[in-house]
Amino acid sequence: MMRNTIRIGLIGTGFMGKAHALAYQAAGNVFDDIPRPMLHAVADLDGARAEGFRNQFGFVKALTEWRALVEDPEIDVVSITTPTLFHKEMALAALAAGKHVHCEKPLTISGADAQEMMLAAEKAGVRTASGFNYLKNPLLKYAREMIASGELGEITDFNGIHAEGFMADPETPWSWRCDPAGGQGAIADVGSHIIAVARFLLGPISEVFAQLDTPIKTRPVKAGEAERKEVGVDDIARMLVVFERGCSGTLQANWLATGRNMQLGFQISGSNGTLVFDQERMNELHYYKAGEDPRSNGFRLIESGPQHPPYGAFCVAGGHHLGFNDLKTIEMAEFIRAIDQGVSATPDFREAWEVQRLIDAAVMAHRNGSWARL
Amino acid sequence: MMRNTIRIGLIGTGFMGKAHALAYQAAGNVFDDIPRPMLHAVADLDGARAEGFRNQFGFVKALTEWRALVEDPEIDVVSITTPTLFHKEMALAALAAGKHVHCEKPLTISGADAQEMMLAAEKAGVRTASGFNYLKNPLLKYAREMIASGELGEITDFNGIHAEGFMADPETPWSWRCDPAGGQGAIADVGSHIIAVARFLLGPISEVFAQLDTPIKTRPVKAGEAERKEVGVDDIARMLVVFERGCSGTLQANWLATGRNMQLGFQISGSNGTLVFDQERMNELHYYKAGEDPRSNGFRLIESGPQHPPYGAFCVAGGHHLGFNDLKTIEMAEFIRAIDQGVSATPDFREAWEVQRLIDAAVMAHRNGSWARL
Amino acid sequence: MMRNTIRIGLIGTGFMGKAHALAYQAAGNVFDDIPRPMLHAVADLDGARAEGFRNQFGFVKALTEWRALVEDPEIDVVSITTPTLFHKEMALAALAAGKHVHCEKPLTISGADAQEMMLAAEKAGVRTASGFNYLKNPLLKYAREMIASGELGEITDFNGIHAEGFMADPETPWSWRCDPAGGQGAIADVGSHIIAVARFLLGPISEVFAQLDTPIKTRPVKAGEAERKEVGVDDIARMLVVFERGCSGTLQANWLATGRNMQLGFQISGSNGTLVFDQERMNELHYYKAGEDPRSNGFRLIESGPQHPPYGAFCVAGGHHLGFNDLKTIEMAEFIRAIDQGVSATPDFREAWEVQRLIDAAVMAHRNGSWARL
Amino acid sequence: MMRNTIRIGLIGTGFMGKAHALAYQAAGNVFDDIPRPMLHAVADLDGARAEGFRNQFGFVKALTEWRALVEDPEIDVVSITTPTLFHKEMALAALAAGKHVHCEKPLTISGADAQEMMLAAEKAGVRTASGFNYLKNPLLKYAREMIASGELGEITDFNGIHAEGFMADPETPWSWRCDPAGGQGAIADVGSHIIAVARFLLGPISEVFAQLDTPIKTRPVKAGEAERKEVGVDDIARMLVVFERGCSGTLQANWLATGRNMQLGFQISGSNGTLVFDQERMNELHYYKAGEDPRSNGFRLIESGPQHPPYGAFCVAGGHHLGFNDLKTIEMAEFIRAIDQGVSATPDFREAWEVQRLIDAAVMAHRNGSWARL
Repeated sequence: MMRNTIRIGLIGTGFMGKAHALAYQAAGNVFDDIPRPMLHAVADLDGARAEGFRNQFGFVKALTEWRALVEDPEIDVVSITTPTLFHKEMALAALAAGKHVHCEKPLTISGADAQEMMLAAEKAGVRTASGFNYLKNPLLKYAREMIASGELGEITDFNGIHAEGFMADPETPWSWRCDPAGGQGAIADVGSHIIAVARFLLGPISEVFAQLDTPIKTRPVKAGEAERKEVGVDDIARMLVVFERGCSGTLQANWLATGRNMQLGFQISGSNGTLVFDQERMNELHYYKAGEDPRSNGFRLIESGPQHPPYGAFCVAGGHHLGFNDLKTIEMAEFIRAIDQGVSATPDFREAWEVQRLIDAAVMAHRNGSWARL
Repeated sequence: MMRNTIRIGLIGTGFMGKAHALAYQAAGNVFDDIPRPMLHAVADLDGARAEGFRNQFGFVKALTEWRALVEDPEIDVVSITTPTLFHKEMALAALAAGKHVHCEKPLTISGADAQEMMLAAEKAGVRTASGFNYLKNPLLKYAREMIASGELGEITDFNGIHAEGFMADPETPWSWRCDPAGGQGAIADVGSHIIAVARFLLGPISEVFAQLDTPIKTRPVKAGEAERKEVGVDDIARMLVVFERGCSGTLQANWLATGRNMQLGFQISGSNGTLVFDQERMNELHYYKAGEDPRSNGFRLIESGPQHPPYGAFCVAGGHHLGFNDLKTIEMAEFIRAIDQGVSATPDFREAWEVQRLIDAAVMAHRNGSWARL
Repeated sequence: MMRNTIRIGLIGTGFMGKAHALAYQAAGNVFDDIPRPMLHAVADLDGARAEGFRNQFGFVKALTEWRALVEDPEIDVVSITTPTLFHKEMALAALAAGKHVHCEKPLTISGADAQEMMLAAEKAGVRTASGFNYLKNPLLKYAREMIASGELGEITDFNGIHAEGFMADPETPWSWRCDPAGGQGAIADVGSHIIAVARFLLGPISEVFAQLDTPIKTRPVKAGEAERKEVGVDDIARMLVVFERGCSGTLQANWLATGRNMQLGFQISGSNGTLVFDQERMNELHYYKAGEDPRSNGFRLIESGPQHPPYGAFCVAGGHHLGFNDLKTIEMAEFIRAIDQGVSATPDFREAWEVQRLIDAAVMAHRNGSWARL
Repeated sequence: MMRNTIRIGLIGTGFMGKAHALAYQAAGNVFDDIPRPMLHAVADLDGARAEGFRNQFGFVKALTEWRALVEDPEIDVVSITTPTLFHKEMALAALAAGKHVHCEKPLTISGADAQEMMLAAEKAGVRTASGFNYLKNPLLKYAREMIASGELGEITDFNGIHAEGFMADPETPWSWRCDPAGGQGAIADVGSHIIAVARFLLGPISEVFAQLDTPIKTRPVKAGEAERKEVGVDDIARMLVVFERGCSGTLQANWLATGRNMQLGFQISGSNGTLVFDQERMNELHYYKAGEDPRSNGFRLIESGPQHPPYGAFCVAGGHHLGFNDLKTIEMAEFIRAIDQGVSATPDFREAWEVQRLIDAAVMAHRNGSWARL
C-alpha cells in the first residue's frame, strides 16, 4: 500500500522557512497516519537562497516569484514564513487559489487584517494553520487535559510570560520589527505565543488592561553607526487579563530580557493543584497535587514520555527529550491530518485572529489607560 | 570589657513573636558590635502563653497587659507582633512612652494610619523598624549594590511576585485576614513583601495600576461547618508599576497559590545583565552578565557566602546556608545597631508607610480601573 | 546541482530501528554538505513490521531476510539495530559484502567478539560507526574542547553515571537482557554510554576496579506468572577507573534506578574549573570558572545554541532545544560525512571495541576483587 | 517554674568554636524541653581570642589553658573544636574529669585512637557526641524513616558524595590537613560526613574497597612562596561499600572539586522509590514514588516544613528554610536532651568510631588493592 502524498509550497527561506522544510519532511516519517508531505516548490526573492533550499531539502522547484508558487496547480499547501508585513497579501492569494495555508505567527499586523484573512479562509473552505508551535508540546496538551478534567480544581490564576533577550542591547540595530508598519512589537512577536498558550489552556479572554513599554527609544540604523532611528513599537508588554471562565491572570511579553533565550513560562493555580512550565526546560512540567501526605508532597517534575501523546511517535522511551524542531513536526503533522480528515486545524486563522484581537485590545487599553473588553 | 545591653519588650507570642524572641537572642551572639539585647518582658492576653515564653526564652517578666509593657521604664525597645489591627494603638503608645519600636508588617491597615504612626515616630525622635525580613538577605543586599553600581546597565523590567498557598483551599475558614477591618488582604499580607523588595532594589514607585481579585468569595465560619462568611478582601493582587527612575514592572501577590510556601521572587533585567531570585532558594542568586564569551556564558548560580555581608557573621564558609531565622537575626541586629548609632533603621516606619501608600493607591487604581499616581 | 545520494539498508524495526530511519532522513535535510541518505531496504523477521516501515519511512524494499539486505549491491550502508547477540554475525556479513556498517551499542557481547568485528572492519577498509549517540550533543563536543584546550586546568576527577529505572521493578519479566549469552547486563547496556562519554572527554582508561551487583536475583519468566528465572547479569556496575592522562574517577551503570529515565551525567573537576552535565537536561551544561569575582561567581548554566556546532544546523536561535532524535541525526550525518570524505567516523568499531575491552576488564576486576589493567 | 541549666565549656574559637557557641545559645531558646545551656568557659591558647569569645557570646570565663577548663567543677559539658590532632588528649581528659563530651568530627586521627576514646567514654558512663551536623537535617530524619518503614521498598543502591573545592587550587598552601600526623585527608575531613550519612540512613557497612588519590602532590609551604611540601594525605577518596543489610553503593570524598561549597549529596534507589538529596539545597528532598499514574508522576520536590520534626521548633510555616546553624542547634539540643534523659546521643563516640573504622578499612583496601571487611 502506497501512502497518499500532499504537495507543499514554501514561501521564505529564513529561520522559519528552514523549520517548515524540516518539519514537513519529518512529519511524513514520524507519523504514518497522514499523507506524506512532498516538498514541491520553494520561493524566495533571492534566487540563490531558493536554489539552496531546493538542493538542501529536495524541493522540486525553486522560484523567485511567490505568486507563481501560490498559483501552481500542483501545490496543495502553501506555507508562509516571510516577515509579518507580507503575510496578508500572500495568504489571500493562496486562499484565492484554493490552497490550504499555513502562515507563521503573528498572523498579520492588525486584528482587522487578521479578520479579513480569517473570513477569506472560512469562505474558501480550506484548512488553515498558524505557527504557534509551543502549543504542540505533549506536556502542554496534557496540561490542558488536566485543566479541562478538573484535576486542578477551580482555576484561580494564570501567570504567563514570554521573555527573550534578542533586542536587549540598545545597540542592536533598528529592523522591521521596530517599525509599527511591520507589526506590533514584542506584544505580537513574542507575546502572541503566551497569549496563544493562555487561550489554549484556559479558553477565551474577555477583558484586558495593558502597559506597553519602550525602554529603548532609538536604535542605530545600522550596526556601529551613529545615526539612530526611533523605535515605533513596544519592547515590553504587561497585560492583566480576565478569562471568560472567570479567572484572571497576567501575560507579559519582553524582548529585552538579557540572557533569556526562550522564557515562555506559566504558573497556573487551581484549588486542587498548580502547574508550572517553562519552555527553557520544555520536557518538564511541574505539578503540585493538593491533598497528598504533607510529609512527602511537593511539586512533581513530570518528564515528557510516551504517556503524553504524541511523544511516543518520536521515541518509545520516556525522558529522552523532544526538541524544538519536533514541536514543529507535530504542528505540521496535525495540519496535514486536519486537511486529510477535512476538519479544522488547531490553531487555525480564526484562533490566530483571536490572538490578534487581544493584541489590538491591549494596545487600546494601553492608550486609554483603562480596561478593554473583547 | 562588658558589652552594653538593651532591654526588649515583646508583644505577641505567635509565629512572629517566637521569631522575634529567637532573633533578638541570636543577634547578640552573632554580632559583637551591638549592645546585647536582653529579653525583659513579654505580653500576651493569654497569661499561660506569656509565661511559656518567659520560661522558654528567659524573659524576666511575663505580662497579660501590653500597656504595662510599653510603659515599663526598664524597657528600651518594644516589638509588636500582634494581628495588624492592633499595631497602631500599641505603636503609638510605645512611641508616646519614648520607646524604640519594631512593628511587624504590614505596618497597619491603611496608609492614613501608617502615616500617623510614621509622623508620631518622627516626632518622638526614636528609632523604628518594620518586619520586612526578606530585605535582610545578604544576596538581596548584593543585588541592590549591583543595580546601584550600574553593573546591570539600564534597568528595563522588574517582574516580582509573592505567592503562597495557605489560603488556597476554599474550605480554609474565614479569619481576621479576610476582614477588611483587619487589613487589606493578600496585597498587604504577602504583597507588602514584594513591594518592599521592589522599592529596596529600584527605589520609589510613582504610578500603579491594579486588579484585586477574590476568587474565593466565601469561607466557612469554622472548619467543617456549613455556615459561610463573605471574604471582604483580595486573594490575589496584580499590579503594574512605574518606578520613579523610569522603568516599569509587575508586582503580584497571591495567597491562593496551591503548593507554594514561599514564592517571593523576581526577575530584574537591565541592558547589561539580569538577576533572578526566589526566596524558595534563598541562598541562591542567578545572574546573567552580558558580553561574555557566548559559548560559555549563562546564568550564574551565585551561592551566598562570606563575600556577601553579613553572611560571614554566621559562618565563615560559603554555601553553608542561612535560614529564615537568620534573616530575622540580621533584621534585629541592624535595628539595634541603628539605635546604638542614632541613625535610621532600614526599613523604618517611613518606609513601611511608603509600602502602605502604594497599597492604598493600588486599591484605588483597582476601584477606578485607571492608573493611580503617588 | 543535484546532491549525491547514499543508499541505506536497515536491519531491525524496534526502538533503534525507528531512530535510525528518522535520523537518516533528517540528516539529509538538516545538513547540506553530505550525500543525501536514501532509505533503500529494511529487514525484519516479521514481514509485517518490515512492510510497515517501508510504508512509514519510504524504504524501497521490505525484506524478511537480513542476508538479502547485506548482500544487496545497491546498498552502501548497513545499519544494525537488532538485539546485541546478533550484531556480530550481521556486521561481519555486511563487512564481507563491502558495506559501510553502523552497529548499535553495545557493539557485541564480549571484547573478543568486538575485536574480531573491529579487525574485520579495518581489513575491509570501510567506514564503521557505533551508536553512542550522546557523544553527539553539541554541549559534549564543547566540553571536550574546553578540556582539550586546558580551560579547566589539570583534570582531577571524573564522576560519571548512567542510571535508568526500566528494570527496577522485580516483577519486570526476564528478557534477553538478563541472559549472559545476550550481553553483559547493565554495565554494557547503559554503562557503555558513560564509558564512551568518559573516553570521549578524557581519553583512554588504563585501569579499572569494579563491583557488579545483581540485587534482583530472579525475575518472572512472563509478566504475572509465578515461575521465575535467574538473572545472569549485573543490574548495577560500580567502577573505579584510572585514565591514561593520570586522573581517576568513577563510572556507574544502573538499570534499577527507580524513577530515572535518562540520568546520564557527569561532574568533571579541574584545577581551573568544573563541568556538570546530565542528559536529563541535555541542552544545559553547567560550568564553574575559577578565578572570577567571588561575589558574582557561580556555576553558569550554558544553554545549547548555534555557538555550539552543529546546533546551528537545526535552529538559528539559541535555547530552542535539541531533542534525542536530533542527536541521532548528527550521528548519522557525521557517519555519512566520514564515508564521503573517506575518513574514520567517531566513534567507530575500534572505539566500540575499546569500550567493550573496558567492560571485560571490569568484569574480570569484579571476579578477582582486584584492579585490572588494560 | 525555672528551667534547669547545664554549663558548657568550649575549647577552640575557630569556625566550629563559633558554631558551637551559637548553637548552644540557640538550643536553649528554640527548644523548651531541655535544660538551658549556659556558656561557662571558653579556652584558647590565644588569650585575646578567648576573651573576644567571652565578650561576644557571654561566657563567664575565658581561659588559655584547656586543662583548666576540663577540670573546672562547674562545667557539665565540654565541647572540643580544635584541629583533629588534639581531640584525643582533650577528650580523654574531659572524660576522666567526668564531663559529658562533644567532639567535632572526625573524632580523631585513626580508628585505634577513636576506639580508645569510645571505650573511655563508655567506661566513664557519660554522654558523648560527635559533630556530624548534617544528620540533624529534618529531611534526613524523614528520609531515614521512609527507608526504615519500607516505603522505598528493597534498597538497591546508595550513591553518595561529599565534594568541596577549598583545596582545589594547587597554590593553596600546605596545612595541618595535608599532614598524615593530623588526620587522614579528604576521606576523613569531608568523607566522614558522607560515611555518617550512609550509616544513618542504611546502617552498618561490612565491606569496603577504595582508591585514595592525591592529584596535587605538593603545596607551597606558605602562600606565594616557592618552597613546596609534599601532601601526605588523599585529596580524593573513592569507595565502594557493601552494607550489612545487603545492598551496595559508592561513597566519594573530594576537596578538590572546584566551585563546590557543599556538595554533600546522595541518591538512594529502592524497588518502590528513590530519594535524592544535596546539602547545597538542604531544605529540599526529591522523592520518586513508584506506582503512581505515569502521566503525572515524577520526582517530588519536598520542602522542609513543620511536618518534618523538629523544623517546627524553628518556624511554624513550611518552606521558610533552616540554615546550617540551625542544624548545629538541633545537634546541641539533642545532645543536651540525651544528657538530661540519661540516654545515648546520636551520633556518639561509638558511632564516630564506626566511621573511623571504615576510614581505616578503606585506607587498607586502597593499599592492598582489595576489599576490606569490617
